[in-house]
Amino acid sequence: MEASREIELEGHIIDSGIMTRVFDKVLDMGGNFEITTFDVGKKKQDTSYARLIITAVDEEELDNILSELHRLGARMPEVENAKLKEAFGDRILPKGFYSTTNHPTFVKYDDKWIPVENIEMDCHIVLEKDTLSATCVPLAKIKKGDNIVIGERGVRVVPPERSRKVNQFEFMQNTVSSERPSETIIKKIASEMKEIKENGGKIGIVGGPAIIHTRAAPALAEIIREGYIDVLFAGNALATHDIEYNLFGTSLGMNLDTGTLAVGGHKNHITAISEVIRAGSIKQAVEEGIIKTGIMYECVKNNIPFVLAGSIRDDGPLPDVITDVMIAQEEMRKNLRGLDMVIMIGTLLHSVAVGNCLPSYVKTICVDINPASVTKLNDRGSSQAIGVVSDAGAFLPLLAKYLKTDAIKSEQ
Amino acid sequence: MEASREIELEGHIIDSGIMTRVFDKVLDMGGNFEITTFDVGKKKQDTSYARLIITAVDEEELDNILSELHRLGARMPEVENAKLKEAFGDRILPKGFYSTTNHPTFVKYDDKWIPVENIEMDCHIVLEKDTLSATCVPLAKIKKGDNIVIGERGVRVVPPERSRKVNQFEFMQNTVSSERPSETIIKKIASEMKEIKENGGKIGIVGGPAIIHTRAAPALAEIIREGYIDVLFAGNALATHDIEYNLFGTSLGMNLDTGTLAVGGHKNHITAISEVIRAGSIKQAVEEGIIKTGIMYECVKNNIPFVLAGSIRDDGPLPDVITDVMIAQEEMRKNLRGLDMVIMIGTLLHSVAVGNCLPSYVKTICVDINPASVTKLNDRGSSQAIGVVSDAGAFLPLLAKYLKTDAIKSEQ
Amino acid sequence: MEASREIELEGHIIDSGIMTRVFDKVLDMGGNFEITTFDVGKKKQDTSYARLIITAVDEEELDNILSELHRLGARMPEVENAKLKEAFGDRILPKGFYSTTNHPTFVKYDDKWIPVENIEMDCHIVLEKDTLSATCVPLAKIKKGDNIVIGERGVRVVPPERSRKVNQFEFMQNTVSSERPSETIIKKIASEMKEIKENGGKIGIVGGPAIIHTRAAPALAEIIREGYIDVLFAGNALATHDIEYNLFGTSLGMNLDTGTLAVGGHKNHITAISEVIRAGSIKQAVEEGIIKTGIMYECVKNNIPFVLAGSIRDDGPLPDVITDVMIAQEEMRKNLRGLDMVIMIGTLLHSVAVGNCLPSYVKTICVDINPASVTKLNDRGSSQAIGVVSDAGAFLPLLAKYLKTDAIKSEQ
Amino acid sequence: MEASREIELEGHIIDSGIMTRVFDKVLDMGGNFEITTFDVGKKKQDTSYARLIITAVDEEELDNILSELHRLGARMPEVENAKLKEAFGDRILPKGFYSTTNHPTFVKYDDKWIPVENIEMDCHIVLEKDTLSATCVPLAKIKKGDNIVIGERGVRVVPPERSRKVNQFEFMQNTVSSERPSETIIKKIASEMKEIKENGGKIGIVGGPAIIHTRAAPALAEIIREGYIDVLFAGNALATHDIEYNLFGTSLGMNLDTGTLAVGGHKNHITAISEVIRAGSIKQAVEEGIIKTGIMYECVKNNIPFVLAGSIRDDGPLPDVITDVMIAQEEMRKNLRGLDMVIMIGTLLHSVAVGNCLPSYVKTICVDINPASVTKLNDRGSSQAIGVVSDAGAFLPLLAKYLKTDAIKSEQ
Repeated sequence: MEASREIELEGHIIDSGIMTRVFDKVLDMGGNFEITTFDVGKKKQDTSYARLIITAVDEEELDNILSELHRLGARMPEVENAKLKEAFGDRILPKGFYSTTNHPTFVKYDDKWIPVENIEMDCHIVLEKDTLSATCVPLAKIKKGDNIVIGERGVRVVPPERSRKVNQFEFMQNTVSSERPSETIIKKIASEMKEIKENGGKIGIVGGPAIIHTRAAPALAEIIREGYIDVLFAGNALATHDIEYNLFGTSLGMNLDTGTLAVGGHKNHITAISEVIRAGSIKQAVEEGIIKTGIMYECVKNNIPFVLAGSIRDDGPLPDVITDVMIAQEEMRKNLRGLDMVIMIGTLLHSVAVGNCLPSYVKTICVDINPASVTKLNDRGSSQAIGVVSDAGAFLPLLAKYLKTDAIKSEQ
Repeated sequence: MEASREIELEGHIIDSGIMTRVFDKVLDMGGNFEITTFDVGKKKQDTSYARLIITAVDEEELDNILSELHRLGARMPEVENAKLKEAFGDRILPKGFYSTTNHPTFVKYDDKWIPVENIEMDCHIVLEKDTLSATCVPLAKIKKGDNIVIGERGVRVVPPERSRKVNQFEFMQNTVSSERPSETIIKKIASEMKEIKENGGKIGIVGGPAIIHTRAAPALAEIIREGYIDVLFAGNALATHDIEYNLFGTSLGMNLDTGTLAVGGHKNHITAISEVIRAGSIKQAVEEGIIKTGIMYECVKNNIPFVLAGSIRDDGPLPDVITDVMIAQEEMRKNLRGLDMVIMIGTLLHSVAVGNCLPSYVKTICVDINPASVTKLNDRGSSQAIGVVSDAGAFLPLLAKYLKTDAIKSEQ
Repeated sequence: MEASREIELEGHIIDSGIMTRVFDKVLDMGGNFEITTFDVGKKKQDTSYARLIITAVDEEELDNILSELHRLGARMPEVENAKLKEAFGDRILPKGFYSTTNHPTFVKYDDKWIPVENIEMDCHIVLEKDTLSATCVPLAKIKKGDNIVIGERGVRVVPPERSRKVNQFEFMQNTVSSERPSETIIKKIASEMKEIKENGGKIGIVGGPAIIHTRAAPALAEIIREGYIDVLFAGNALATHDIEYNLFGTSLGMNLDTGTLAVGGHKNHITAISEVIRAGSIKQAVEEGIIKTGIMYECVKNNIPFVLAGSIRDDGPLPDVITDVMIAQEEMRKNLRGLDMVIMIGTLLHSVAVGNCLPSYVKTICVDINPASVTKLNDRGSSQAIGVVSDAGAFLPLLAKYLKTDAIKSEQ
Repeated sequence: MEASREIELEGHIIDSGIMTRVFDKVLDMGGNFEITTFDVGKKKQDTSYARLIITAVDEEELDNILSELHRLGARMPEVENAKLKEAFGDRILPKGFYSTTNHPTFVKYDDKWIPVENIEMDCHIVLEKDTLSATCVPLAKIKKGDNIVIGERGVRVVPPERSRKVNQFEFMQNTVSSERPSETIIKKIASEMKEIKENGGKIGIVGGPAIIHTRAAPALAEIIREGYIDVLFAGNALATHDIEYNLFGTSLGMNLDTGTLAVGGHKNHITAISEVIRAGSIKQAVEEGIIKTGIMYECVKNNIPFVLAGSIRDDGPLPDVITDVMIAQEEMRKNLRGLDMVIMIGTLLHSVAVGNCLPSYVKTICVDINPASVTKLNDRGSSQAIGVVSDAGAFLPLLAKYLKTDAIKSEQ
């Protein structure tokens, strides 16, 4: 029994490539389409509008196709209210649950379009009937009795239109390559960061221990001190080696200023952790004068929140490390809200973790010496992430330099 | 003085993403467009047709935009004959020369559309007025007095439409990743190779010495013996180590069957070369019974042509190596003609060289353990290349296995 | 005030390179040495014995040098008992604490040499005076009042002598390279695994989700079913995607048998997790017939313990995942005891975690497509790890094949 | 019939690890040893002397072992003159030919020790009886009638002793890792370069096109202008894109100062080549004012010789490119003589080519974003090469900066 239904698309659907992806998806999935209306935006600023009849071999296939088109922003012309089902146990989803994208999302309920708060990918929409509010909730937080949205009907997704502005980074987006003009890219990132801060925006940083091992900690500390960073996401290793470097000049026992192995250096990171445990916390260690410079020092001194998530390979760990990863994830989520840009440097684990929880409209830059890291981040759904293949130890000093240069803006 | 002109687009222009890229290009370059006609193919098999008026700030900018659109397949509705200019010296191009894409191309001359022979990227079109023939010629072969096509007027480019058939590889095309189902991909490549051979098609292989070092030479030799390969492109190293392995069981001195360094093994590759020089050529060494198995042996025995291009790092080299790279390039070009598929394994240098000379419709598969190699190949213009991130030493034995399996076709 | 002291070295100190490293260390650190006795083992099986007088500019420098030599196995000819100090708080180390290597270690107390149990790197030695027992304890487990060993006096370290047997892997140890004979290496690993199992030994596996994404799960499941694996260390991702593949044929939504994106596939991993939560645990999901094949299935059916450690990027997670990383670490430690070999595939995080807790005499093989992963593992102290640069999706099917081949042993 | 012979070793044989490697080699190859004399250098500056009796199962095995020990510097106590055999054809080696190491080498003839000129690895020693001179000759240059040294008797190799001075780079030598303090390493390289130039030494650079693509050309041009470079080795790509950048601000069509694709940029590199062909050569293009800045410009202006070797993937090429790789190799060899340091950046092909021809005592630094490149260089025999895993686009600007800083030397 062949089945068909009409959908509509609106916005910069050609310009943003959505039209193409809709056509592709339908044909790839064995369906067919007929265009009934196509009002093409004639000029740059105009949006387009299209209606298509989608056909498939049967109702089930049609639903499959529509489910995919939904994620691209397609909607039924006359939309019913979203269907809800109660979770019948904690962390147990009803069959047919709706799974979120990382794009801005709206749910129709009581004939009103309700925006979904805290959107992130691979989560679920819980609707509060009394307050008519909708929230994006991860599986781990689903409670018995929650009203979970089922299926795509009554849900509207707004994929980001391709901004002409972001375009300045566009060239890097096609392929992740080490053959790009490093200083030019760094200047652009510096310029973008300045603009965000001038407009009162917020920037987060995600960092791995390579920042310390490559001796880029002084540069990052300076960037924090200058007020460019609003929150730091990292693990035990970044904080430990930052403090180790501050106390002993070493990282994993290597003297970073001479590049040689320090005498007894293998003990330094354990001693650093032990000293912070003795003080009680990183903050107290800073206040007691034990920690006198570095990334963590600047965070404490400038009241920049940091989230240190535990991992199975941690030594110690430092008392500030949240050893339960689910609690750490919640803390990370809270601190991600409202960020305009996130810069990820030298850590695949934390980058993917943060990427998972970011809406698609947050500018995301991933700096890694290994091009495969950025590919993996994109594969995990953070398709907005822009990759920069570079060495943290050379990247951060240059970024710090260009953030200091006032001349940048006029240059651009 | 604002300038504008009308262009037309025809074919699977939405389906193939060309429409999107045209719109993007215009806006990125500061131009604007108005759609005057848009006949959308209503069904899967239908083509679309569009006419757009492109506007730019002045004639020069407009020409710039049209030049880029040309490469995407756009054409002026009423097309003039191509403009020609004589080369006034060997290897000297007239100003404004037309630079080729790797897509099928036609030149209008004497009001006829003449197909350009031997198309490849970054070359030039030489028109023979008497015979009304057009040929794609690299800079090195331009002769004084050649009629060179100038500008894009009168030139038509036909970018490949996205074939539903090729689609089976499509999933790999988005990003180059090591996280793909290796055996599934290998099965598909085997299946594609079988189909090509059944239809009388031709397959070329481009290989680096990693094939030998990882002990995949027996597998490749078998694939050649079974008749799947029509031409081999390589350098001195692949042939030398293949013969070294045949004579001594070693590659760069390592015994490949035990993984240990062979006694006196450092001399083996030089001895292998010296023996072939003594015999006169690889063919003679095979005929004299010096070389008894391996890749080069199978090439000789099965009359498979091979092109061994010299490089600055060659030891020896073997007498069959073409030490002048321009002559080697010509030989490579000749042998590339008529291939339907090229498989590149473990050599960036030769892969880019071959990629440069391939039309965009030749199926191109690039197998490398380093994802960055495929990115680089794409960056150099071979955007049709599909990357497989794998280990030659494991990939080729599995490919050989699946080429032997008759069950494959029914499985698919 | 120049200071000097005599040390002695015993064992295969030349053969194993320890003599060289001792001389290097002394000279690098600005010291000097004089050899007073040198009885060189005349034959292969003989050990050597040397006494050296080490000199430094002052006592402090001398202590520094001796501390490093200690880690190489050097000892004072007449050894005092170890010095102890009480921890004056939980997780707080006394100044001068001894930091362990991952080599077998003995402590002299009450004039007896007591072996240190559960040795692993970067931990501490707690001595139980009543029972005369010594245990290696990580910082997190130090309790107030524990008797902690201080300094190197009275501690003896026995670095592994270079075994002629392990030698078959030796060739790979020099540099981590993709240019090694893959099948030969796989055959050797298979042969080694068989030998270990025949001698009643135990093998652990550490795996990342790339095993599933590359469709190597059936091969690993078979290896487990055949009895080669005694314990599995992984994270939420490996188990989730293994179960996703079992339930839906997909991994991260990609159909692994066709290589295409599955309809609605983006929901599959969440559904898989939700189903296991509903069942209560992986074991229950197996028993209820929800999970019918795969890695986790074989673990349950064959009573193979598994430790799934949580990480900040986890979706769900599965109910079997230990979300507190310190508890997960303890569980990992318990299950690592008594292993003779550990194979690590496609996961840097878990490989480093496991590597941190392994004694240096456990055979450790690290398979990764990225050579830098093995380098990092070595840099973190697991210098015994042998790297194999290969693709999990091709490596595991070949390993499974060679484990089945009875002919292997005679071949070698 | 068991066979044995006595060898002697002299020098810093413990300190440099040679003793260890000799013992290893003998045992690995199934032989045995007995130490008859062992005078250990008592102090840092003293050399050691050892005599060993090497035993093997038969004469052939013994020869195999001695052949390997020879390469480590071992020699027979009473040395015969070297054995010679005439080449009976061009490029045809007599059986048993001696294959060179890249260490300083001496041949005994007429009871005199003759130093071998122009030593490099994998070549042969031709002895001129009249002049009593010995030269290292590659296979391609062997002429009929040349007196070729056969076997190791009468040949003495002097492996580099581990210099305490070079030691400052030592920390990087263990493993090639991206986790090293980038700025510290760059400072050290700058300091080493300054010292070499102050002592009248010579520095060569080997560069790939990534230098241009990452926009590091201005930095390298400055380093050349400041007099730090004595010769440049590269290919067509580096020179072409350097000139393209100079003429158009682009590299492979990308505007390096904005990071966007330039209008019509795909033609720029061909135009650049064509312009140079028109001028006749790079030098003439500089003199005619066509090329006004950049790497090639500085080479011409400062009379720095450059060798541009052709490769199969070349567009054009530029008229200065030597298209016959054997001629290019000879040119490279000539220009390598007398260099004290070679810095290789972003090109595996040319780095291996240059590495092949360098004596082992030349300081060799290889900068690449891919750690596997350095591994490959080492695997090819250039074991003296030190790897720096960094991004050319960030590395070179920082190197230029530190070369300018006078303060460096006092800092160290």
